[in-house]
Amino acid sequence: MTTYLRSQGRAPDALRPVRITRNYTRHAEGSVLIEFGDTRVLCTASVEERVPPHKRGSGEGWVTAEYGMLPRSTHTRTDREAAKGKQSGRTQEIQRLIGRSLRAVFDLAKLGERTIQLDCDVIQADGGTRTAAITGAWVAAHDAVTKLLDLGLIDESPIRDAVAAVSVGIVQGVPLLDLEYVEDSSCDTDMNLVMTGSGGFVEIQGTAEGVPFSRAEMDALLALGEKGIRELIAAQKAALEG
Amino acid sequence: MTTYLRSQGRAPDALRPVRITRNYTRHAEGSVLIEFGDTRVLCTASVEERVPPHKRGSGEGWVTAEYGMLPRSTHTRTDREAAKGKQSGRTQEIQRLIGRSLRAVFDLAKLGERTIQLDCDVIQADGGTRTAAITGAWVAAHDAVTKLLDLGLIDESPIRDAVAAVSVGIVQGVPLLDLEYVEDSSCDTDMNLVMTGSGGFVEIQGTAEGVPFSRAEMDALLALGEKGIRELIAAQKAALEG
Amino acid sequence: MTTYLRSQGRAPDALRPVRITRNYTRHAEGSVLIEFGDTRVLCTASVEERVPPHKRGSGEGWVTAEYGMLPRSTHTRTDREAAKGKQSGRTQEIQRLIGRSLRAVFDLAKLGERTIQLDCDVIQADGGTRTAAITGAWVAAHDAVTKLLDLGLIDESPIRDAVAAVSVGIVQGVPLLDLEYVEDSSCDTDMNLVMTGSGGFVEIQGTAEGVPFSRAEMDALLALGEKGIRELIAAQKAALEG
Amino acid sequence: MTTYLRSQGRAPDALRPVRITRNYTRHAEGSVLIEFGDTRVLCTASVEERVPPHKRGSGEGWVTAEYGMLPRSTHTRTDREAAKGKQSGRTQEIQRLIGRSLRAVFDLAKLGERTIQLDCDVIQADGGTRTAAITGAWVAAHDAVTKLLDLGLIDESPIRDAVAAVSVGIVQGVPLLDLEYVEDSSCDTDMNLVMTGSGGFVEIQGTAEGVPFSRAEMDALLALGEKGIRELIAAQKAALEG
Amino acid sequence: MTTYLRSQGRAPDALRPVRITRNYTRHAEGSVLIEFGDTRVLCTASVEERVPPHKRGSGEGWVTAEYGMLPRSTHTRTDREAAKGKQSGRTQEIQRLIGRSLRAVFDLAKLGERTIQLDCDVIQADGGTRTAAITGAWVAAHDAVTKLLDLGLIDESPIRDAVAAVSVGIVQGVPLLDLEYVEDSSCDTDMNLVMTGSGGFVEIQGTAEGVPFSRAEMDALLALGEKGIRELIAAQKAALEG
Amino acid sequence: MTTYLRSQGRAPDALRPVRITRNYTRHAEGSVLIEFGDTRVLCTASVEERVPPHKRGSGEGWVTAEYGMLPRSTHTRTDREAAKGKQSGRTQEIQRLIGRSLRAVFDLAKLGERTIQLDCDVIQADGGTRTAAITGAWVAAHDAVTKLLDLGLIDESPIRDAVAAVSVGIVQGVPLLDLEYVEDSSCDTDMNLVMTGSGGFVEIQGTAEGVPFSRAEMDALLALGEKGIRELIAAQKAALEG
Repeated sequence: MTTYLRSQGRAPDALRPVRITRNYTRHAEGSVLIEFGDTRVLCTASVEERVPPHKRGSGEGWVTAEYGMLPRSTHTRTDREAAKGKQSGRTQEIQRLIGRSLRAVFDLAKLGERTIQLDCDVIQADGGTRTAAITGAWVAAHDAVTKLLDLGLIDESPIRDAVAAVSVGIVQGVPLLDLEYVEDSSCDTDMNLVMTGSGGFVEIQGTAEGVPFSRAEMDALLALGEKGIRELIAAQKAALEG
Repeated sequence: MTTYLRSQGRAPDALRPVRITRNYTRHAEGSVLIEFGDTRVLCTASVEERVPPHKRGSGEGWVTAEYGMLPRSTHTRTDREAAKGKQSGRTQEIQRLIGRSLRAVFDLAKLGERTIQLDCDVIQADGGTRTAAITGAWVAAHDAVTKLLDLGLIDESPIRDAVAAVSVGIVQGVPLLDLEYVEDSSCDTDMNLVMTGSGGFVEIQGTAEGVPFSRAEMDALLALGEKGIRELIAAQKAALEG
Repeated sequence: MTTYLRSQGRAPDALRPVRITRNYTRHAEGSVLIEFGDTRVLCTASVEERVPPHKRGSGEGWVTAEYGMLPRSTHTRTDREAAKGKQSGRTQEIQRLIGRSLRAVFDLAKLGERTIQLDCDVIQADGGTRTAAITGAWVAAHDAVTKLLDLGLIDESPIRDAVAAVSVGIVQGVPLLDLEYVEDSSCDTDMNLVMTGSGGFVEIQGTAEGVPFSRAEMDALLALGEKGIRELIAAQKAALEG
Repeated sequence: MTTYLRSQGRAPDALRPVRITRNYTRHAEGSVLIEFGDTRVLCTASVEERVPPHKRGSGEGWVTAEYGMLPRSTHTRTDREAAKGKQSGRTQEIQRLIGRSLRAVFDLAKLGERTIQLDCDVIQADGGTRTAAITGAWVAAHDAVTKLLDLGLIDESPIRDAVAAVSVGIVQGVPLLDLEYVEDSSCDTDMNLVMTGSGGFVEIQGTAEGVPFSRAEMDALLALGEKGIRELIAAQKAALEG
Repeated sequence: MTTYLRSQGRAPDALRPVRITRNYTRHAEGSVLIEFGDTRVLCTASVEERVPPHKRGSGEGWVTAEYGMLPRSTHTRTDREAAKGKQSGRTQEIQRLIGRSLRAVFDLAKLGERTIQLDCDVIQADGGTRTAAITGAWVAAHDAVTKLLDLGLIDESPIRDAVAAVSVGIVQGVPLLDLEYVEDSSCDTDMNLVMTGSGGFVEIQGTAEGVPFSRAEMDALLALGEKGIRELIAAQKAALEG
Repeated sequence: MTTYLRSQGRAPDALRPVRITRNYTRHAEGSVLIEFGDTRVLCTASVEERVPPHKRGSGEGWVTAEYGMLPRSTHTRTDREAAKGKQSGRTQEIQRLIGRSLRAVFDLAKLGERTIQLDCDVIQADGGTRTAAITGAWVAAHDAVTKLLDLGLIDESPIRDAVAAVSVGIVQGVPLLDLEYVEDSSCDTDMNLVMTGSGGFVEIQGTAEGVPFSRAEMDALLALGEKGIRELIAAQKAALEG
């Protein structure tokens, strides 16, 4: 196995520095800036006292997400989706993933007939925006739930567990944790893992960009990812206690 | 482990009957009706002597896919996307997946600056439409490539390997191969696997619909999926020889 | 008058072989594959227990239609309307025509406040897709009505008469019945007739593609069309009895 | 046959007063306000020195049309299509009809590679807006062609013949010429005829709104329409000479 | 200061001839053709017995406007917004301005829960279409209010004052009133003023097209504008009395 | 005149604290976070080596802007424009204003055939987002121009002067500088001023939200605004030197 040198001497199994800043903006019920190295995503949680049609009258709430990138969060400018009049397929895939991931740890009956709307907006992109978004959105959702509890609108937290996400991939034959942009764009295999605080899998999405990957490679990636998730869950916990 | 009784006495590790009908319609360079039980998808491959902008002048071709469901392919009628004026997030996810899966086994340089456009249209849906689409699209693409070879437009096949896809999932605790609709809509975990003829992974997409899944469950699903893929690859081969 | 030789030795006043396959797919209340030679259209009828706003509270039902072509139903690939985000003017004209034609033989009061939604999707095109669609949609609607009667949801059939459609045209000076694609694209005059089982006109749409047509030519076309409609009505009847 | 009393004592076979005002606005190469009674349509012809893609390099020109209604041209306000973001199916049908009708009398080769763009905007609607639009658009197109001849941009007129249009219909069993709104909305059969100065048919579009119509009724309507067209052609000629 | 010669010997502080034709079309509750020289705008006022969501149940009404240009109202043809599927930013700015201007003189409570919808459609453009639109829309709204009073639907007029608008600008150093197109397209500064009958400012929108303008220039423009508005208010009054 | 007490004891003629942070994100050629009190707008300047069609071949460049609000930058969540598929009229007005304001101080010929694309995205809104955007965009544009000069792509700065913007308004009869949200939403008159470093007016946009405003009130507002602009221009200068 060759040796791949990562920027800033990062080890293959190391996360980039993770920073979680709560109350980053004023208006949202939860507002978190999450940074995975140079990737910065603002995650806000808004509580709305209504639910989408398929939940009306069910007694259950809903958790959903939208995702966007500021036009110049990227190396070269990306067209503004609002100006183009449509969200790309990639944007839709990511926001559906964020929504499913958060719902996996919510007891929607305990939320009551209200919606937690998560908005994940990428301020600066350097790989891993969707995994940062999921990890930060959970903290923002937690803060919003705390507000609901403080206001007496709910008696019990609908959050059953933490959820976090990380990317893993194989670059020049080396399995790496938490790919940054330059690694992501040259990797052979790219995988995103979403897991809970108790170690269960919520989502696994792996794609061979170049040659197909083997079962052994998948096992190596899963091991790296599980390590990364544990550290992210710890960072979430620390942020909530901070 | 409880026992889950599948319709028509199907074993947990059995595919539904697979039928592949080539030359189903007349105009396309490749036209395949693929059936996984009651799921029927028409996959056509069209050769176009142009490439999208990012490939112009590269000497390389492109393979891409679109997916659609006839409005009454489903149990209750689904709104026609052309009438709504937009493709759903689900449709976009699926057609991006089909395109990536096919490109994974194509040598785009050998294709020359032309596009193979795959259209996967669901005539009747009973679960597994995206996996049937990938499996059928590969046969349609193969037929289109054969036409290009026969016409002398290319000298060598750009197809490096077969590719097929299957779903696996856990229903009432039982790992099952190739979910039909009633299973898919009640499963705890749903996973789609895309693999090559030589056994490499191209895509893995797993989602916990209910409780998160464990590593042991993932391993059981992967084993089932590998078995199903081998049988689908054999069916593709038989169809091409038939 | 010159002699125009049609493919497969077809006489100027002959329809192409008509095949009507009922119950072509499983989920719809009516599902008919109709073939006019190489033109194949899947017509499904879906019953929905709601009506559009202009019929709410009226006690009357509604019958409406949508039309689409699979991208590679045509000789060269046609862009997918769902991907373009809009239906073409031609598509809208055709689906409005199908809807009007079917409503002409429906007693909407006897249908009750429900909608029969007809979906006509062209699997393979070789001219005459709109006339095949109308002819097949009527059979699908009839099957849907039979289901409503069987379920006791209505007491009496709202269908007053059969309705069918056929194209006629003048090619190289020769009036022809039921144009196939190669004839349609070279004709001077193209006319679509929609008529009832009792011989009344529901729609007539004639267009001079090249030189304007005379009253005498119109009369010749109408005579051809009336003959074709009689045969199509007979084919519908046979299919329902079959 | 019952007697149907028309407004202002109009005879069943009489047109409403037709007024054609040329040079109604200043900027267009042809600008005609045409009035069929209370129906007022502004038809402008704009010459553009370019052609759509399918005519590029062909040496031929193009004639095309767009149609619109001012929101309060109608009895109750109609939503503005620009604000809704799409043209209705009806609008598209009408503008396609206008375009086909005008092209039927144009020799596109003599026009050279330029486009005559016709805009037909309904200022006030009282039935027959599409027939007034076609009749007025021909005069506007004629004025634009005269400008091209005067400027020496073309040597010979590409206009082969006049074209005009009129509606006919059956109201309470009485065949009527040139329906006004109150007649149009209560008629059993509605037919639009587009004919040339030399009496050829360019388009016939007939629809049974209520009961299907018979061949004898069609013949009566055609006779009425032919009479109306002759009078409209005369009015066009008078306007051009005026 | 240089002397700028205006067309037709117009003085720098003179309006173009203003013509206000009431009841220009038949169906609308108010219908006014207003002409500022060669600029002609049709302003209709439609009364609708409903209000937008933010006014429901408030007891108050609403006044709103839409604006459009016929495609060949302009020197060279402008694309039809309905065909493009969206209103331009300019159109939206103008219709928002018209709506705000009219609402500034309406007592919405006295209007009751109904909407006056103003449609301002430019038939011919020669500069100042938005100011003509506001000035004409007020007359159309006044006529609609008179109808509401005559029908006894309201007891008291909700119109508190007149409102009119005019453009002013600096061309080659000369402050001018009521710019026509050729002046507007070459001016250094362009300003639109909306004022009430009692001389209050409702809107001021000034833009330096070339060099920024000074406070002294602004004062000169304001003086010109106030003069123009007084004359327009007088013309409105005369039209209502006419 | 009554006394209006502003939050945090701010004087009527005082700006909120202004903070300008350059290089806020990494990828853009200019990236500025500007804060007017609690209003925070990220302004990025991207240099693109192409121009829009109307400038191609002119030798001149272009400066343009887009504006957006993060969904939860506002007190209650605002729908995401990308998800709705269109930009609101307000958004379009603002981004057109920003573009015009910046172009007013650019010599487009000196820029060469390239575009400076400004993106102004509101992270947190508390009134005055458009004026903060203009003020910050100028600093971002200045940084981008410095990069062009450093790279030798241009020889001379195309920036002729500074430009900044501020809002003024009348609340409860008191003229105020730099309105925050609570003031903006209750003001009688709202005016935005855009001025250059040398004191020229680029834009003035004033609207009477309640009663029309008098000339004396306008004069008071202009004086306040001129004071504010001078301070903002000083803040821009300090930021560039910092």
